[in-house]
Amino acid sequence: MTVPACPPTSLAARVLDGDLRAAARLMRDLDDQIPGAADALRTLYPRTGKAFVLGITGNPGAGKSTVVDALIARYRRAGQRVGVVAIDPSSPFSGGAILGDRIRMQRHATDDGVFIRSLATRGHMGGLTRSTGDVVAVLDAMGYGVVIIETVGVGQDEVEVITAADTAVVVTVPGLGDEVQALKAGILEIADVLVVNKADREGTDRTIRDLLTMLQLREGGEAEMEIIRTVATTGEGMDDLVQAIDRHRARAAGSASDRRRKQAEAQIMTILSDATRAAALVEVARRGGLAKIAEDVAARRIDPYTAAESVAAAILR
Amino acid sequence: MTVPACPPTSLAARVLDGDLRAAARLMRDLDDQIPGAADALRTLYPRTGKAFVLGITGNPGAGKSTVVDALIARYRRAGQRVGVVAIDPSSPFSGGAILGDRIRMQRHATDDGVFIRSLATRGHMGGLTRSTGDVVAVLDAMGYGVVIIETVGVGQDEVEVITAADTAVVVTVPGLGDEVQALKAGILEIADVLVVNKADREGTDRTIRDLLTMLQLREGGEAEMEIIRTVATTGEGMDDLVQAIDRHRARAAGSASDRRRKQAEAQIMTILSDATRAAALVEVARRGGLAKIAEDVAARRIDPYTAAESVAAAILR
Repeated sequence: MTVPACPPTSLAARVLDGDLRAAARLMRDLDDQIPGAADALRTLYPRTGKAFVLGITGNPGAGKSTVVDALIARYRRAGQRVGVVAIDPSSPFSGGAILGDRIRMQRHATDDGVFIRSLATRGHMGGLTRSTGDVVAVLDAMGYGVVIIETVGVGQDEVEVITAADTAVVVTVPGLGDEVQALKAGILEIADVLVVNKADREGTDRTIRDLLTMLQLREGGEAEMEIIRTVATTGEGMDDLVQAIDRHRARAAGSASDRRRKQAEAQIMTILSDATRAAALVEVARRGGLAKIAEDVAARRIDPYTAAESVAAAILR
Repeated sequence: MTVPACPPTSLAARVLDGDLRAAARLMRDLDDQIPGAADALRTLYPRTGKAFVLGITGNPGAGKSTVVDALIARYRRAGQRVGVVAIDPSSPFSGGAILGDRIRMQRHATDDGVFIRSLATRGHMGGLTRSTGDVVAVLDAMGYGVVIIETVGVGQDEVEVITAADTAVVVTVPGLGDEVQALKAGILEIADVLVVNKADREGTDRTIRDLLTMLQLREGGEAEMEIIRTVATTGEGMDDLVQAIDRHRARAAGSASDRRRKQAEAQIMTILSDATRAAALVEVARRGGLAKIAEDVAARRIDPYTAAESVAAAILR
């Protein structure tokens, strides 16, 4: 497919006009790091900062997508336009995304007020944080009042992605095993609101007791943390959840600028590391490619530190 | 605590002499990126490349630590010295590691032939891959014939860490929900041997059928993949597992150099990105600090791309 060149300013203008195809194109270009895409984002950037960014994460199988689906429906009924960034964990080998439960959100596919963008966790580390920030910025500039980031949040990458949200909701289910195993996920610490979904199941009370115990161990304790019971498939508890999110949003308003500064820090560092990485790859190519250098390391002709630091010395001032 | 300066060559020599305290010290210094630690590793590096590196990952609650524990016991009985790198997911806020099931390995604590080192997934991305590679190199140079990397492998970070193994074992349990949810973890693709632990539970046959179905979807299919049933707590199936690991090791011998080259590529790139990151942080500090730059971005006075690229331009040749 040949794609005609598109000046960044005009692409940005089309995005601001609400052109969904232009928006999808810009998001793809940003994700692929097409030169020039960042320029369009620069044009959009002053229009950002208005959206409420909601992060949703939790154990696989906890019913996150159903919760997101129900939240979209509720925000739509409240007259909000909703953007969704759905993080698809993908294979490190095939690069493909698993779209399984994206399908559940299809019922919003024909709704103009909902824009869903999937991002795969592919390629090098940090890429996801950058891509997510970019997509959120585009949706924000387009006037989506609520932007939902949905991810499977047990890895460090996903945890960082969710830190980019104004309010982070962690979804769990009854019966996931003992406290230590659940804690292992390390995501409780980033939760602003906890959801126990499928709360019509046996063991819900026990799970909530366990969560309360764990929250006491959390730095800062269980201060103001709300635990909401939902059955997302029937809609039970979803109004409670929306209200708990609103309450956190109000409580966090005072520290919002602090949070946004931290998000900006993460964004700057990932863009910076992408830029230096690109320079490193040019130098590596000049030396015959990464595979050739790595072969010398694998054969113990050189150690990885000496190999890497020699490339670094060549590109850094 | 004041730590007396220790010339890197003498630290390396003590490590090669089997001094466990020196080894622990070097691992900590490498992890903390103490200047000079890399020099000690340079000295050790030519002695590495002999250990068999076994990666173990899987769903939280699948009983990985019990499987690792049983494997250690078996390799010890076979006269092998065993090093373990246990990856502890830690909070992005507190930086602390959760040591829950490390306790299960305590029975090896008094065994000279077993060295266990925990690593927390803290700090910036990529750090874990680097630290793991460093610890594996130290253990390898010290003559541990088997080095086991144990991690909770659902995030991109952990998947990359496990890619550093010669043989990757993925542990799952019956009854984790539908195929799509299990696939979401994205770890099946890196498995060389699949273990269904707690195989005395109901639903084991169904889980194995589901896994076989998923393997058919995997690139390269189910070619030569073995699925082993274990009850690690009783030791059932553990001999089968050790044999399956041995068979994979034998099968993979031909492609081992390819695999090690790929590991070296990952290692070089993380060391390289750490070096450029360090240079970037110096420049950021010169400009008043990351928080100051990020505040300008958060206030939309500048966009993150312009901010980051200006720093990159200052440090790159």
